[in-house]
Amino acid sequence: MGLTLRRVAIDTYHENVAYLHRDCAVYRAEGFQALSKVEIRANGKRILATLNVVNDASIVGCNELGVSEDAFARLEVEDGHPASVSQAEPPESIPALFRKINGERLTRDDFHAIVRDIADLRYSKIELTAFVVASNRSELDREEVYFLTEAMVASGRTLDWHESLVVDKHCIGGIPGNRTSMLVVPIVSAYGLVFPKTSSRAITSPAGTADTMEVLANVELPFEQLIDIVRDHRGCLAWGGTADLSPADDVLISVERPLSIDSPGQMVASILSKKIAAGATHLVLDIPIGPSAKVRSMPEAQRLRRLFEYVAQRMHLSLDVVITDGRQPVGRGVGPVLEARDVMQVLENDPDAPNDLRQKSLRLAGRLIECSPDVRGGDGFGIARDILDSGRALAQMRAIIQAQGAHEFDHHHPPLGALTFDITATEAGVVVGIDNLQIAQIARLAGAPKVKGAGVDLLRKLGDRVAAGDVLYRVYANYPADLEFARQACARASGYSLGHADQVPHVFVEF
Amino acid sequence: MGLTLRRVAIDTYHENVAYLHRDCAVYRAEGFQALSKVEIRANGKRILATLNVVNDASIVGCNELGVSEDAFARLEVEDGHPASVSQAEPPESIPALFRKINGERLTRDDFHAIVRDIADLRYSKIELTAFVVASNRSELDREEVYFLTEAMVASGRTLDWHESLVVDKHCIGGIPGNRTSMLVVPIVSAYGLVFPKTSSRAITSPAGTADTMEVLANVELPFEQLIDIVRDHRGCLAWGGTADLSPADDVLISVERPLSIDSPGQMVASILSKKIAAGATHLVLDIPIGPSAKVRSMPEAQRLRRLFEYVAQRMHLSLDVVITDGRQPVGRGVGPVLEARDVMQVLENDPDAPNDLRQKSLRLAGRLIECSPDVRGGDGFGIARDILDSGRALAQMRAIIQAQGAHEFDHHHPPLGALTFDITATEAGVVVGIDNLQIAQIARLAGAPKVKGAGVDLLRKLGDRVAAGDVLYRVYANYPADLEFARQACARASGYSLGHADQVPHVFVEF
Repeated sequence: MGLTLRRVAIDTYHENVAYLHRDCAVYRAEGFQALSKVEIRANGKRILATLNVVNDASIVGCNELGVSEDAFARLEVEDGHPASVSQAEPPESIPALFRKINGERLTRDDFHAIVRDIADLRYSKIELTAFVVASNRSELDREEVYFLTEAMVASGRTLDWHESLVVDKHCIGGIPGNRTSMLVVPIVSAYGLVFPKTSSRAITSPAGTADTMEVLANVELPFEQLIDIVRDHRGCLAWGGTADLSPADDVLISVERPLSIDSPGQMVASILSKKIAAGATHLVLDIPIGPSAKVRSMPEAQRLRRLFEYVAQRMHLSLDVVITDGRQPVGRGVGPVLEARDVMQVLENDPDAPNDLRQKSLRLAGRLIECSPDVRGGDGFGIARDILDSGRALAQMRAIIQAQGAHEFDHHHPPLGALTFDITATEAGVVVGIDNLQIAQIARLAGAPKVKGAGVDLLRKLGDRVAAGDVLYRVYANYPADLEFARQACARASGYSLGHADQVPHVFVEF
Repeated sequence: MGLTLRRVAIDTYHENVAYLHRDCAVYRAEGFQALSKVEIRANGKRILATLNVVNDASIVGCNELGVSEDAFARLEVEDGHPASVSQAEPPESIPALFRKINGERLTRDDFHAIVRDIADLRYSKIELTAFVVASNRSELDREEVYFLTEAMVASGRTLDWHESLVVDKHCIGGIPGNRTSMLVVPIVSAYGLVFPKTSSRAITSPAGTADTMEVLANVELPFEQLIDIVRDHRGCLAWGGTADLSPADDVLISVERPLSIDSPGQMVASILSKKIAAGATHLVLDIPIGPSAKVRSMPEAQRLRRLFEYVAQRMHLSLDVVITDGRQPVGRGVGPVLEARDVMQVLENDPDAPNDLRQKSLRLAGRLIECSPDVRGGDGFGIARDILDSGRALAQMRAIIQAQGAHEFDHHHPPLGALTFDITATEAGVVVGIDNLQIAQIARLAGAPKVKGAGVDLLRKLGDRVAAGDVLYRVYANYPADLEFARQACARASGYSLGHADQVPHVFVEF
């Protein structure tokens, strides 16, 4: 029975949805149920979709087969094209999914089948969530994490830079303001190493590197332009979403995020698959630890390090894990414009530049420079500092910004949100705690990253002595509702703790 | 910012969905993302919904707030009513859900909060699935199963029949043709016990009791009529979906079904919560075991029995667990009309009636009759047989059918599907195996339960000797496509195994 295809302009976000009218003869004859998985065939293509039943002929008529935005794009046809729909065979990997739900260990082939089905959007939200929850905690052993990583790389494109040494850096996240990539890339690429940095946008944080870089330049670059920029400048700072790298990762994140799931196995597979697909041969990985960081103790950090190292070694990626100070946000600004300001201050060697951001970036850059076979271990930091102090890093950053397409931005007069309020110390004391999660939450409620000029500017950091009434931080927003949300969050918990100098938590790490 | 409400006639099946146009000022100002949880306020009511973003003003305009069918009904307003929408606070129980995902044990209060949110449709499909998968396998201890059961009862209505003895029976499922309720209810209610039987429709099977009873009578009865029928006749055989009994169960099933999840804890909570909410004081529970039954070994059956007994005792329900022969389908017919025919043959004491269905029903009815304080243990079977043989059970069934509203049905000429094919023995031998799962699958593909006359008629059962060419079973369908699906399934595996008489598997149980 033939139907005509109709684009139903609903964005169902990584889930293909098919819409059939309740009185459609096919719906009745096939005995579909709502939420059935159906197979749509049109234009020689086949896709799976979840069925929604419609009672309104103005959305889909009785002879029409409606499909959601993403699904319509995948069929690559015009409205009104002939199409057919039938009960779908379940995705090939469903038996493997059921075995994982039942607590069994899966094989390499199982993971490849599951990830292929996920990348092809053959899983419903229900099946996706089941995979994520059943693979949570210690449900995956390290061999399975390796299989998952390998399968995620295989699910998308792999870039080949035709270079024997392609460096990258990554942080596991959780520390607001931690924009070291925007300093490490210009320093290390100015030194001459190939550093094609692709970043994500913020998922749960107030800014990702791509969000902050976008204050300065275009980040959504066509793939060919990205190749040209890296050939000409050895580095770039682009958004990775257009490159089809580890596409299953993006689909998995769409259910991990609302469940706040970020288990070690999934983190390792997600990060390493993206980096390997992007063509990195050498990676420096930053694991911050602190009382409100993702990792809260050294034993936990060491366990995570070993899992990263095991999988990296199986995937032939040279990996250097550094465990860093995650007790508080890095730099001063939290939010795209504020963080871009901090980065430019460091690049310009401004005496007011946040020193913690400068020091951390130099150390990471030094580690990467030491990947170069002609640099002795320990010499990287000095080389990086020379490149930054001499202005070569700034020149390199300007060249990358020009190549990507510069945006107007004067960091001496950053375009911050027009609405502000200050949080002040209610008593004298020393700053003995800054809660990463609470500061991130306040910055998000104020509008970051969607509102580029929104966020939190930290005027005091750990160990600073304050008098009663001193400003601890300033919140910027653009919309009254956002400002009010942020103000309520600050009233519940400012994120700052004051006390005595000897209460400042120890620095856990040397680096 | 005010919006007007618009019914979007899409059936999203137990998930509230809100539709906002991408250019809607509220969407932009609030910084919503696709799949955000939003709170809709209208008419003094508040509901949570998942956001879908729409690019077509004919579905929702820029000043409209679209809501899916179920959600619209819950708001109890007209199209065009003023409404507002905002970022939703996550459901109260989300922290408890996250703890369960992380493998923690939950408290009674946690389960009550989670189940209340589920029954109120405050959970997204992602959150629901996470709860189901995180509570799967042995993740719930027996105290937690009790808390879950109690919370599920509390989430809906509880019926009170104002009787000290209200009996019920239930089977954990998985055995096609197992329509004992339609015999046990007339026998036991004719004896005089109150037996208000509410049943489900088929979820994954080719027929539920409600589907088969519907061949004979109305099963979707208004609640008040159901009360009247039970007062007049001591029994009924109705569909339980209208009575709002353990409503969280229906929502959970909507994600358990596509994942084939049916863990002991969830099964116990689901079954006992429904029965207790329906007002039962005494329950006989049927656990069939066999190579293709849900439960495949006696130790597994005993573990399940102990869990049922523990929770029943905590809930003050008198429970009698019987472990029965689940090696093959019960009776001959599989599918609503075929099963109704079997039931009527037994009630009429037709010599051709399937004896296994008769015997099993008499034994279950006997156990229930023994709940009566004036019946000695062991006497129930004889009493039940007298009621059946004397025609009193048939008369009682006719009275119930009349009271519910009789449908025209002549079991001597049952309205079976017009299209059929036979599966025959390819060689001589003895039937040594009948696969419950495969027979159920063939009957479903043939159209059951949606097509009442579709299904499988088993002409040979375990232990029967056949010659090459003898018909093993006959498949009935109404639509050519269904017939073809069923035929392909039979070609892959007929479900029958032939062999020597000594290969017939042992009867595991006496009952």
